[in-house]
Amino acid sequence: MQIGLVGLGKMGGNMRERIRKGGHTVIGYDRNQEISDSKDLQDMVNQLTEGPKVVWVMLPIQFVDETVTQLVDMLSPGDIIIDGGNSKWTNDKRHAEQLKAKGIGFLDCGVSGGIWGLEYGYALMVGGEAADVAMVQPIFDALKPESEYGFVHAGAHGAGHFAKMVHNGIEYALMQAYAEGWELLEKAEEVTDVPKIFESWKEGTVIRSWLLDLTVDALHKDPHLDKIDDIAEDSGEGRWTVNAAVDLGVPVPTIAASLFARFVSQQEDKPAMKMIAAMRNEFGGHAVVAAQPEKTMTPGEGGNPKGH
Amino acid sequence: MQIGLVGLGKMGGNMRERIRKGGHTVIGYDRNQEISDSKDLQDMVNQLTEGPKVVWVMLPIQFVDETVTQLVDMLSPGDIIIDGGNSKWTNDKRHAEQLKAKGIGFLDCGVSGGIWGLEYGYALMVGGEAADVAMVQPIFDALKPESEYGFVHAGAHGAGHFAKMVHNGIEYALMQAYAEGWELLEKAEEVTDVPKIFESWKEGTVIRSWLLDLTVDALHKDPHLDKIDDIAEDSGEGRWTVNAAVDLGVPVPTIAASLFARFVSQQEDKPAMKMIAAMRNEFGGHAVVAAQPEKTMTPGEGGNPKGH
Amino acid sequence: MQIGLVGLGKMGGNMRERIRKGGHTVIGYDRNQEISDSKDLQDMVNQLTEGPKVVWVMLPIQFVDETVTQLVDMLSPGDIIIDGGNSKWTNDKRHAEQLKAKGIGFLDCGVSGGIWGLEYGYALMVGGEAADVAMVQPIFDALKPESEYGFVHAGAHGAGHFAKMVHNGIEYALMQAYAEGWELLEKAEEVTDVPKIFESWKEGTVIRSWLLDLTVDALHKDPHLDKIDDIAEDSGEGRWTVNAAVDLGVPVPTIAASLFARFVSQQEDKPAMKMIAAMRNEFGGHAVVAAQPEKTMTPGEGGNPKGH
Amino acid sequence: MQIGLVGLGKMGGNMRERIRKGGHTVIGYDRNQEISDSKDLQDMVNQLTEGPKVVWVMLPIQFVDETVTQLVDMLSPGDIIIDGGNSKWTNDKRHAEQLKAKGIGFLDCGVSGGIWGLEYGYALMVGGEAADVAMVQPIFDALKPESEYGFVHAGAHGAGHFAKMVHNGIEYALMQAYAEGWELLEKAEEVTDVPKIFESWKEGTVIRSWLLDLTVDALHKDPHLDKIDDIAEDSGEGRWTVNAAVDLGVPVPTIAASLFARFVSQQEDKPAMKMIAAMRNEFGGHAVVAAQPEKTMTPGEGGNPKGH
Repeated sequence: MQIGLVGLGKMGGNMRERIRKGGHTVIGYDRNQEISDSKDLQDMVNQLTEGPKVVWVMLPIQFVDETVTQLVDMLSPGDIIIDGGNSKWTNDKRHAEQLKAKGIGFLDCGVSGGIWGLEYGYALMVGGEAADVAMVQPIFDALKPESEYGFVHAGAHGAGHFAKMVHNGIEYALMQAYAEGWELLEKAEEVTDVPKIFESWKEGTVIRSWLLDLTVDALHKDPHLDKIDDIAEDSGEGRWTVNAAVDLGVPVPTIAASLFARFVSQQEDKPAMKMIAAMRNEFGGHAVVAAQPEKTMTPGEGGNPKGH
Repeated sequence: MQIGLVGLGKMGGNMRERIRKGGHTVIGYDRNQEISDSKDLQDMVNQLTEGPKVVWVMLPIQFVDETVTQLVDMLSPGDIIIDGGNSKWTNDKRHAEQLKAKGIGFLDCGVSGGIWGLEYGYALMVGGEAADVAMVQPIFDALKPESEYGFVHAGAHGAGHFAKMVHNGIEYALMQAYAEGWELLEKAEEVTDVPKIFESWKEGTVIRSWLLDLTVDALHKDPHLDKIDDIAEDSGEGRWTVNAAVDLGVPVPTIAASLFARFVSQQEDKPAMKMIAAMRNEFGGHAVVAAQPEKTMTPGEGGNPKGH
Repeated sequence: MQIGLVGLGKMGGNMRERIRKGGHTVIGYDRNQEISDSKDLQDMVNQLTEGPKVVWVMLPIQFVDETVTQLVDMLSPGDIIIDGGNSKWTNDKRHAEQLKAKGIGFLDCGVSGGIWGLEYGYALMVGGEAADVAMVQPIFDALKPESEYGFVHAGAHGAGHFAKMVHNGIEYALMQAYAEGWELLEKAEEVTDVPKIFESWKEGTVIRSWLLDLTVDALHKDPHLDKIDDIAEDSGEGRWTVNAAVDLGVPVPTIAASLFARFVSQQEDKPAMKMIAAMRNEFGGHAVVAAQPEKTMTPGEGGNPKGH
Repeated sequence: MQIGLVGLGKMGGNMRERIRKGGHTVIGYDRNQEISDSKDLQDMVNQLTEGPKVVWVMLPIQFVDETVTQLVDMLSPGDIIIDGGNSKWTNDKRHAEQLKAKGIGFLDCGVSGGIWGLEYGYALMVGGEAADVAMVQPIFDALKPESEYGFVHAGAHGAGHFAKMVHNGIEYALMQAYAEGWELLEKAEEVTDVPKIFESWKEGTVIRSWLLDLTVDALHKDPHLDKIDDIAEDSGEGRWTVNAAVDLGVPVPTIAASLFARFVSQQEDKPAMKMIAAMRNEFGGHAVVAAQPEKTMTPGEGGNPKGH
């Protein structure tokens, strides 16, 4: 079948390639004319000539509203727009209603797979109406891994992005779990070869996983991660997950802790710790102690430096 | 080679079988004579007739001290004892010194694999001296999975159990992460089929793992886990991991949060929450509000019921 | 001066009394005619006859929009509306703009004090323009405690409710801190009189506070809190605080942990713990162990029941 | 009455002064002869001439064992030793038994008050037998604040230090709570004067406390804490509290989170965050995205940079 694909960046470009390998026709559009298959959005739509038009939008969240609104005027009843970007699930209902008013279908699709997706397939989580899902199914089949897994119609409009968001929330906590274990092993005197321990865990353990495999790859390249900055960025999904959990009254202590650990890593200073230090100065002469000569801590000279 | 194996319970029994499949001779001892290969501990030792004697102790932690002490008198310089149970790593140095005084070698070995180990092999994390590890290597090779992974000489005495402890600490947080994500999906109105979402994650996603596979198995049997009690037991390792982290100054927010979530699940009541509720009663007439008729919350009758 | 007060519930009623004690005229309105000073909202506005009209809205959040919109048509340029309820700070800018279009001033005012406020005064956190604050200052002075503290012009529109929200977020974590300490003392064998320990902390300690005083009062009435349900409700502010922190990239581990503890206490079952238990069943025969007779844990019969 | 006081550091020196103000005789000993009242420990003991001898040890934990052992040989049945330092409660039973064998009494006494104690009195939490407490009561009365609070006989041997440990654990979480709230206010655009907000909270609020007062003092000196390092030290008690909670199965999420926040602040780099960053590099070309020119994020050029 034919499909229009808006956004040919790292993800969109690879997805175009994988869909084409699946035997379908992709008319891509990207503002960067060197990689675009069409002059502009209208040209892309015009090149879709067979049956109902299907357009996959693969853009950063801040450009989705504008693009959907432009497409409304170019499409006709019975056509379908898929938002495959990392959009917030709360936007999906709005887009679905905006398009329904014109008779255009809408699907939200969370996509996982990153740079590995081109070769192994992308995991797809889709929200929307069953008839619309059915129409786009050949494209989903081309994108997903060659196995019985990797695709789900997760529910109504928004369910696809919600499922992808939760996937990423879980991912945050899984990563933090391995990271905490790694730091602990690095600190233990008895332990001599942390990378080998992680590598050994790849088989036979309860904690074997794809993320563990990646951890091993990273430790092979840099056994103590000396070349890596200690800053962990976060994308929207981790924040949205915690916010959604709070709104739904769901306790998510590990996902929240993972997110907060990243926040701290992103700070140049740690304001809360300044406040803790300031309070300690106030109540305890902790600063005073720090300024005293070391020898006051020897027996008989001592006292109780922290008797607050 | 020959090996004595003390403790033929669920783990020990299966390990005997797997070692035998590897072509080795196992003389097992268990107080339960129906499954034991020997009359008593001394009889087991006596049946080990080839070269240095190797005895694998596979007992709950509370019986290890006693058994090691009994074995000291039955073994000779050059022999080796392996503690393969879920012992605390801090015990290992003590056992190593106790045995070294008699010229007997000691290895600590963390074992992962559970009921799946018999078929797929056990992941082994070993601490102790290289020469001792080399002597027992044929047994390790029989127990481990048939792949290049699943075995590590992790370091000095204690390193094996330390690595296994950290493995379990990580496991706690991984499990909690999936559990939080599952609860969140269950609460989302848009989402219609949570088991299918989990199943779809088995391929192509960042969070695919053996634990995810088990989660899917559990949801197949009981889609909303209605038949499962909401009590999550904890074994020693999770607690030891947090205590070790605290002693080493390592922040482990997700592992600790996972452990605390299990503690709460084990409580018949939640004392801290009683205290929160009691304080709310004191400062705010929260109880008073609760006792008022609903209609006071309608407009114009209202007020600010929580203006503390 | 004169002021109109909408909502004469628990908070509003007491505030009317305290403002009157301060020598001012309050025309209250409540749908409950037994406690109302006016027939309806219009009648209340009509009774305000001196200078610019000042109306204080003291309603649950869900009724504020409607009431503000009704008041717009009854007020004139130069008049002022104060939202003193537990409104979300993000609503304040909207209300300020809605009113500014008609030349009416707006102040948001977070109010703390609960049932104690009538006697000791209410702590007030106000957001909005300085000229508007100045006009209402006599009312603020009547409401606040008789000390130099208890009132702040916190910043622009929304700052009052934001400050109050943060106040409540801090409150959540403070309460949880005392509750954790209390539970720990209750569990320690050596400790014989927990209420007396809490009482002793009222003087000379680092942790003395008003909340501690309330804790002592609660323990005097019920030394082990046997009569209190272990359910801790949460109001909007705790949730808003965590959401605001997430949006601003601020790590709030203790405030979030406090909120999640309350969420868990509110659940009839604990879904995440079901999932943990289900996974344990899958990987480990933990259920199998549980079903085995106790005696398998004796030495020599043993094995390693948790060797996953 | 007479008392010997070992350790005249910051705490011990002030306590000597306060006990003397209470009308008692203090024979202090400190290795620093300039501040000592006695030549050595034996000389101090010799100068205690009235009735049973009472010796208060006020030393850092690492010197307590040695000093207690020295005192055993200098004291007689019926005498009493008090450990008033920040000792671990688990040491107290051992000391009590060591001394009981010689007929010497033992009390453990947690002391709070810091540099403020000299003027306002020290809060005292005492563990041990009632008869021993009664004998030392005049000294406790001299040290404690002049109010009905500030002293408790908390229970058996160890209960005093346990109560003090929990006090400090609570303190960690209280401090973190204010610190989180402060950081959040600092980040909010609407808020213009954070120190004034904190100051206003001193009266009429739920969160008023001595720690809040100290916070206000600190903000008066340095409104944004620009001169304070963002490193929060921890002393033993916070760690002991979390370890004790883990051993007793008590969930302490806020106390643990407070401790971990300090751990992170003490790290030169944050190892766990390196691991998170390394994993992100592996799975997602996150580094690759970072290296791409900014313009790829504009519409139509876009793609989905985080579609893992």
